[in-house]
Amino acid sequence: MHDAGGMPPVFDDLDELFSPRAIVLVGASDRPGSIGWRTLENLVSHGEFRGELYLVNPAHGEIAGRPCWPSVVALPPDAAPTVAIIVVPGPAVLEAVGHCAARRVRFALVLSAGFGEEGEHGRAIEAQMREIARAAGMRLYGPNCPGIVNVKERLGLTFSPAFPDDLRPGPIAVATQGGALGRNLLQGGERGCGFTAWASSGNEADLQVADFIHHFARQPDVRGVLTLVEGVKDGPRFAAAALAATRSGRGIGLLKIGRSEYGVRAAASHTASITGPADINSAVFAHLGIAEVDDVDELVDFGALIARARPRGDEKVAVFGSSGGACALVADVLGASGVELAELAPGTRERLRARLPSYAAVGNPVDTTTITLTDPGVIDDTLLALAEDPAVSLVLLPYAIDYGAATGATARRYVELQARIPKPLVPVWMSERAGEGYRVFAEAGMTPMRSARSAGRALARWLAYGRWLARRASRPDPLLLVQGVGPEARAIRALSEAEGKALLRKAGLPVPPSRLATSPGEAAEAVSAIGAPVALKIASPDIPHKTEIGGVELGIAAPQAARAAWERIVTGARDARPDARIEGVLVERMAPAGGLECLVCVRRDPVFGYLLTIGLGGVHVELMRDVARAMLPVDARMAEEMLAGLRAAPLLAGARGQAGYDVDGLCRFVESLSALVAAHGHGIEEIELNPVWVGPKGAGVQVLDAAVRLRDYGPAPGGE
Amino acid sequence: MHDAGGMPPVFDDLDELFSPRAIVLVGASDRPGSIGWRTLENLVSHGEFRGELYLVNPAHGEIAGRPCWPSVVALPPDAAPTVAIIVVPGPAVLEAVGHCAARRVRFALVLSAGFGEEGEHGRAIEAQMREIARAAGMRLYGPNCPGIVNVKERLGLTFSPAFPDDLRPGPIAVATQGGALGRNLLQGGERGCGFTAWASSGNEADLQVADFIHHFARQPDVRGVLTLVEGVKDGPRFAAAALAATRSGRGIGLLKIGRSEYGVRAAASHTASITGPADINSAVFAHLGIAEVDDVDELVDFGALIARARPRGDEKVAVFGSSGGACALVADVLGASGVELAELAPGTRERLRARLPSYAAVGNPVDTTTITLTDPGVIDDTLLALAEDPAVSLVLLPYAIDYGAATGATARRYVELQARIPKPLVPVWMSERAGEGYRVFAEAGMTPMRSARSAGRALARWLAYGRWLARRASRPDPLLLVQGVGPEARAIRALSEAEGKALLRKAGLPVPPSRLATSPGEAAEAVSAIGAPVALKIASPDIPHKTEIGGVELGIAAPQAARAAWERIVTGARDARPDARIEGVLVERMAPAGGLECLVCVRRDPVFGYLLTIGLGGVHVELMRDVARAMLPVDARMAEEMLAGLRAAPLLAGARGQAGYDVDGLCRFVESLSALVAAHGHGIEEIELNPVWVGPKGAGVQVLDAAVRLRDYGPAPGGE
Repeated sequence: MHDAGGMPPVFDDLDELFSPRAIVLVGASDRPGSIGWRTLENLVSHGEFRGELYLVNPAHGEIAGRPCWPSVVALPPDAAPTVAIIVVPGPAVLEAVGHCAARRVRFALVLSAGFGEEGEHGRAIEAQMREIARAAGMRLYGPNCPGIVNVKERLGLTFSPAFPDDLRPGPIAVATQGGALGRNLLQGGERGCGFTAWASSGNEADLQVADFIHHFARQPDVRGVLTLVEGVKDGPRFAAAALAATRSGRGIGLLKIGRSEYGVRAAASHTASITGPADINSAVFAHLGIAEVDDVDELVDFGALIARARPRGDEKVAVFGSSGGACALVADVLGASGVELAELAPGTRERLRARLPSYAAVGNPVDTTTITLTDPGVIDDTLLALAEDPAVSLVLLPYAIDYGAATGATARRYVELQARIPKPLVPVWMSERAGEGYRVFAEAGMTPMRSARSAGRALARWLAYGRWLARRASRPDPLLLVQGVGPEARAIRALSEAEGKALLRKAGLPVPPSRLATSPGEAAEAVSAIGAPVALKIASPDIPHKTEIGGVELGIAAPQAARAAWERIVTGARDARPDARIEGVLVERMAPAGGLECLVCVRRDPVFGYLLTIGLGGVHVELMRDVARAMLPVDARMAEEMLAGLRAAPLLAGARGQAGYDVDGLCRFVESLSALVAAHGHGIEEIELNPVWVGPKGAGVQVLDAAVRLRDYGPAPGGE
Repeated sequence: MHDAGGMPPVFDDLDELFSPRAIVLVGASDRPGSIGWRTLENLVSHGEFRGELYLVNPAHGEIAGRPCWPSVVALPPDAAPTVAIIVVPGPAVLEAVGHCAARRVRFALVLSAGFGEEGEHGRAIEAQMREIARAAGMRLYGPNCPGIVNVKERLGLTFSPAFPDDLRPGPIAVATQGGALGRNLLQGGERGCGFTAWASSGNEADLQVADFIHHFARQPDVRGVLTLVEGVKDGPRFAAAALAATRSGRGIGLLKIGRSEYGVRAAASHTASITGPADINSAVFAHLGIAEVDDVDELVDFGALIARARPRGDEKVAVFGSSGGACALVADVLGASGVELAELAPGTRERLRARLPSYAAVGNPVDTTTITLTDPGVIDDTLLALAEDPAVSLVLLPYAIDYGAATGATARRYVELQARIPKPLVPVWMSERAGEGYRVFAEAGMTPMRSARSAGRALARWLAYGRWLARRASRPDPLLLVQGVGPEARAIRALSEAEGKALLRKAGLPVPPSRLATSPGEAAEAVSAIGAPVALKIASPDIPHKTEIGGVELGIAAPQAARAAWERIVTGARDARPDARIEGVLVERMAPAGGLECLVCVRRDPVFGYLLTIGLGGVHVELMRDVARAMLPVDARMAEEMLAGLRAAPLLAGARGQAGYDVDGLCRFVESLSALVAAHGHGIEEIELNPVWVGPKGAGVQVLDAAVRLRDYGPAPGGE
């Protein structure tokens, strides 16, 4: 599926797919309940399709008073359907696709199932469909999917009987692979979240989730995109589409299915998607400005906020309610989520104090007390005061309980106030009873959050997207978009430590002085030439884990000691690995005492290209998994942001009154490493530098160990 | 508020409070909408109170056809109300309480507000009420609270107009401080969770949340308790009540308000509760078997599971649904929550395979595909097969979408099947549309979880409580329950390192051999006597942070070197701290190389008593906060469990092929330390041992540094 040519992804215009001028329905039926009948009903009875509609069914001359043709090729010569909806049984699909291609249909939606999801045979038929379509310049949608719902135009290219029920319009677009969870999002309309359209791409024989994200990124009335993916098939396409959306301020909320061991297994049996390592996927999503969530309701939460306002990232929040307990709970959850409460101006507090009882709280949260139930005018005066405070960007309205009509009345008041207040008012509806007040908020499109926790998480993600927009959106494209995924490698070749370090040294990266000693005498000479103390390390491409076989000795100061160490190391290595090719022993100057050990690693992910991982070495990486990841290229400024996000960051900066380490040097080092990988095109498979010694401030960094693996295409890549 | 006598907490029988034989309503009114009127309405119109009811209001001879008396003391001589509900305005409350005491009322519920929550004056009146009640053997409930709702008996001692709306009976009891969040829980009845009673204790002038938890722990029809606390006033009471519930299999779900900086501030302005450090509170809750949650909906989730079954802790779960995507998502979330999916028996898979389409998934999750919509009989056969698998303890039923009547029909089928299946079937209702199917589940008391994430978190907590029941429920009472909180200390006295170590050594704890050298010559002698290498450390009660002033020298091997080091240390200390009392220099044998440094610390929390903290030293504690905490006493087995739960546990056990450290020795050490603290009664304020050297397996542990602080009551505590 990979675009091997290294060309940037190209996206077709999909406007005609979402708003067709003329449709042919292949497999139309008058048998109630059948798929052909349901699809027809959605087009002619439940929706508002105003274009030409042609029906195809060889068994009928007419269906529901409309003429019916035996096949697409038998349509009248002046018929020019741009979109075909194919709902015939699996075995008849291929012929129908061929007919559509012959009649220059631009998009064929195959809703029928029984293909790739059932195994090898089905995948082969999908490949045939794709060939037919490609040859004719036709694009395929599906198979094995419920189709498209264009909410804005009330147009359903779908057999789903639920189509007419889930049509709340609004600025959020939805692109999913699976059907049920996609419709789940549309049912978020119940809560007030509105949608432009939903595309559900099923087996993705041709068009993918990425194509729909890219389409939505071009729509002026789309403010955000929600997507559910089981696996990303084409990394460059996905990244390009995602950036088109996120850079334009259209935040993407994404739920990845198959993140845990169980989920991977379940997703595999569901759609045979390949789900990559969860931490790699998550790093890529974060890099692209995508808000990754953990559950479907969190997608709607995120979409609801993006629909209300584009974040800057420095917004501060106010909490305003009549239950002190609920206010405190919301404040608690915001604090735990890292969302900041606004510090109210003295004037604001005075205005609140003047209008509220003495035992009300006029800080932030503002606890009006239940006086608002008996004197609702208080709400107007105090909420306006709060919203006029320049420190406040958004106001949360916690509702702990449903009091029926009384709650409905306060909700209506908030809806009216929202019309006068240019900052989002976001209800937090914590009661299990979704009564009148809830419905008032939902109908007004104010999309109540369903718990304090949900509000906290959604705000944290919304703010993070704002910070990405402010700092990262203008950064260079990931290397993958520039280089493509590259050709298949013939083989992967591991360099010896000496070779790897030579490659790094040549690129100007700091590697300690060293010599390869092929005899005890050369080792002794090396000590004098390089300067003590030195480390001696077995040099063999067949022994990657040197310490395990006693292949490393440290702190050798005298030439005579180096001679003896050479003997021990080589004898030990020959005993432990009789078949290993032994090139000698690397004699290397040791870094001064007082540094910190870090790990810096670049790996090529087959889907997403080069990712750089950075963290403190040892237990920090192994047990605490305290690492930061980003797609290449990474410059020094970005490396600094990555390091600052580590839990171990205070160690680097200098904890407990210590002076700290050369973070600047490390950041410049990361930038150089990134440039080195870019300069090699697709030539690098992996560079793992562990440890990298980071000296005290100003003392620089040194690569103490290097494992480099190259991709062999035939001739070795440049630089060697 | 502390019970200073060291007696175990005593709890009054509260049966009469929850089911009174005779009630007097002080402040009854016939003015519609008034508090007195609403409370009366709840008693006589909305509820089912069948006992004697007396009304008190000096302005009326009769209210709503019932006789009315001017005061409680004016009631006829044969009137014997056991419970008084006081709803008169704040200033009249104290007199009413006095009258109740005079007439031997057993419980006075003060619903009126305007006391402690308004400041110092209000708190003083509360203290007066308490005195009056205590003198008469009467217990107070409130003030500033909505009262009691006895759901089971449809009895409302409350002014809340929502009383008749939230009365779904069931096995869960609720005890809260605040009112709104308590009612929020009762509205969980909307989802199918049923309740026995709700007590909301307001300002807790006398009766506290702990009293109600203890009461509920004695009710045969209570299976679990949900509680919301802003601050625990009396640690021993709370702990005793909680253990009464959790040890009896009545799981407690608890939400603590005021955990973040913001929440603390908000809670303080709300009820002036003191909220202790969040990590101490959480450690105590976990120790007592309480499931601490992060939001109110999670309380209902936990309650719903506890209502269905008492956990063993080793339950494994099956997922059964018709949407592959929803099944995979639920599996994912379970995996992330640490909940295990059951491995199905081959026979189970065969039965599933025989009845399901070829492309269905018959592992776990079981994805039936949407065939169940057209052939619902499939549900019966396959779900019964799944539920009969002995590996399966509970089945989750994910519903991604609401399909109206069709979904309702499947829900009814599951409800019928639940009657035949002895394992809980738990719906996971992921749609925002709570349609017919949702209502069917809720009415049947199957309490759908509202998201995959909620289900995962609730199951994880339910299982954790099961493991606590299996391993911890039978453990000894926390020291606090045995010793009480103790008298107020006159002062806290810090011991010097030498004094602290002497105390430890006397109790048999392993402290390296050492001598206090008061001259350079004594230092030199000490090296010979103790054996090299040694550490020299300044000995001064006024210099707790020795390294900061150069007060520590390590690795001294020769007597002559010790002499010089003594001079340097003492001179440096005199320069840095001219006023410090210098007792000399401690000369101590150094631990062998190759150990690991740990932190072991016991601190006395003023509310909850002694807590032991254990973790690996350095960054593990400071940056990663990777520590385990428990209430004393801690024996070796429990210490082992604590250590096993650390993220750094693999380091102790021996990561990367290393031999590992003396975990057994460390556990025995912890047990001895626990015994030492217990033997000192209330005498210890804090013992911080950092680092404790833990040697290789079998090599034992040694206390390298010790900071001990004692509580002075006058005479020094024993052992010194």
